[in-house]
Amino acid sequence: MSGSVRLYEVSLRDGLQNEPVVVPLEQKLSILNGLVSAGFTDIEVTSFVRPRWVPQLADASALMSQLPKTDDVRYWALVPNQRGLERGLEVGVQNVATFLSASETHNLKNVNRTIKESVAGLQSVLQTATAEGLGIRGYISCVFGCPYEGDVDVEKTIDLAHAVLDGGADEVALGDTTGMGHPEQVKRVLMRIVDSGISLDKIALHFHDTRGTALANVYAAWQLGARSFDGSISGVGGCPYAAGAAGNACIQDLIHLFDRMEISSGVDLERACHVGAHLEGALGRSLPGRYHQYWQGSRDRKAVKSA
Amino acid sequence: MSGSVRLYEVSLRDGLQNEPVVVPLEQKLSILNGLVSAGFTDIEVTSFVRPRWVPQLADASALMSQLPKTDDVRYWALVPNQRGLERGLEVGVQNVATFLSASETHNLKNVNRTIKESVAGLQSVLQTATAEGLGIRGYISCVFGCPYEGDVDVEKTIDLAHAVLDGGADEVALGDTTGMGHPEQVKRVLMRIVDSGISLDKIALHFHDTRGTALANVYAAWQLGARSFDGSISGVGGCPYAAGAAGNACIQDLIHLFDRMEISSGVDLERACHVGAHLEGALGRSLPGRYHQYWQGSRDRKAVKSA
Repeated sequence: MSGSVRLYEVSLRDGLQNEPVVVPLEQKLSILNGLVSAGFTDIEVTSFVRPRWVPQLADASALMSQLPKTDDVRYWALVPNQRGLERGLEVGVQNVATFLSASETHNLKNVNRTIKESVAGLQSVLQTATAEGLGIRGYISCVFGCPYEGDVDVEKTIDLAHAVLDGGADEVALGDTTGMGHPEQVKRVLMRIVDSGISLDKIALHFHDTRGTALANVYAAWQLGARSFDGSISGVGGCPYAAGAAGNACIQDLIHLFDRMEISSGVDLERACHVGAHLEGALGRSLPGRYHQYWQGSRDRKAVKSA
Repeated sequence: MSGSVRLYEVSLRDGLQNEPVVVPLEQKLSILNGLVSAGFTDIEVTSFVRPRWVPQLADASALMSQLPKTDDVRYWALVPNQRGLERGLEVGVQNVATFLSASETHNLKNVNRTIKESVAGLQSVLQTATAEGLGIRGYISCVFGCPYEGDVDVEKTIDLAHAVLDGGADEVALGDTTGMGHPEQVKRVLMRIVDSGISLDKIALHFHDTRGTALANVYAAWQLGARSFDGSISGVGGCPYAAGAAGNACIQDLIHLFDRMEISSGVDLERACHVGAHLEGALGRSLPGRYHQYWQGSRDRKAVKSA
């Protein structure tokens, strides 16, 4: 093995938040146990957003109270604002993720605030979280393109990344929210961020595979020295109401890529695939991840052979 | 635009040869017209393999006789042996592709010959094709891994590449036949090939996207200086009998990747996507290509909005 990477798993939050099916708490806990046993060290499990906005995650407090006990995993919860953070703290959240967008239009559509208002609101969240000794991640959305605005100025991302880190965050996750990024752009953005004085060990990459570029983007970022990558089991996420709108980078694709490159992710590919089969059953739809589909196909062939 | 790439389209040959449905000649010609109008310069249209082995391509001679007339496209046909080449010459083939495997076991299973026997048999094919002034491509399969043998020694590939080029081929296509390759390996193999004295302008890369690595592999090869890439519309190909066994690199994924990187492929992405929709209809199954699925999903959403 030549080095290692850290994979940050987002199925239960980013993966489920747009699903038409509400996955029951027991199913989520079963999936979570699968993720833990596969070896993930960072799992984003829910969001303390208003339950009526995202009914899929309305069980956030209950879920947080029943997390598998282990010292090997950091559990993360998204907190959209101070109220969300307080709800998290009530149930002992230890790692929180905040978010805002590098695109003004996307930020307005997402949270009905300007970026400036979001940055101002974030300060108290970061202060409280820092005072409570929490791990803090700051997502920046639409870094590699915005469905409303198209290209997004990298200076916006750099300003926000500094604001988030200066406010106390441990890391910044750069989001390719709708899968518009390409590998040469990923390199340019990361080089500009490094030039601005931010070390790559503070940066995670959150790609979506909408147009097939996620793994090429991961590889480009890895080449530059990035070592932290987000993904979801079997690529769950995105907007499943519309056929073909793919979700997050399929985390099995990432595990397999790094396995083949002899870089340790610490995650067992086969176990991750079993979680994918379970998740597909829970959602009642097939999931798009490429390795997931390959693995399911191999399994079906074996079943046919032994039948 | 900063440079250009050449895309080599293989839907009608590699894409269809394992399909359970036999696509009628008129449908093939309609798809071929779509490919030509999308701007592809290199299209592999069929194989002169024995019709009873591959009934999907039994119309090879009829198809070759009805190719759209244009000076902008090189039409290619696969010729497994001297007999196949002669059948091609009877109908005026101008560019032929030969093949053998870098894996002994795969070569035996594929053509019931050792690699040595294949190389010997290839000499007369290459001589005749050269004497006839044909364009010649030599495929080498399983360069990046073999489903039977696992890792494949790059020296095998280098020896075969030299044999094929010395025999008169214009280019060698390195095949990742079952999608086992990864980008660091692609770089290592290409560097070794260049070190052996073969210029990268003689090399095409033929990736399959079985495990999601195709675009990362394309990107890695492009970084090293390779400029010729194979793909099929919507990723048709592979083994469709088994769910999830993905086919060739989806050529729309490649067009989109290079469009985003401002590298000219000369192919119109939207037109290629329309061919994908047509092909999906002709096969009666959904095709796996990521950009294809994104495009179909966007189309469905528009249809719902206007309904």
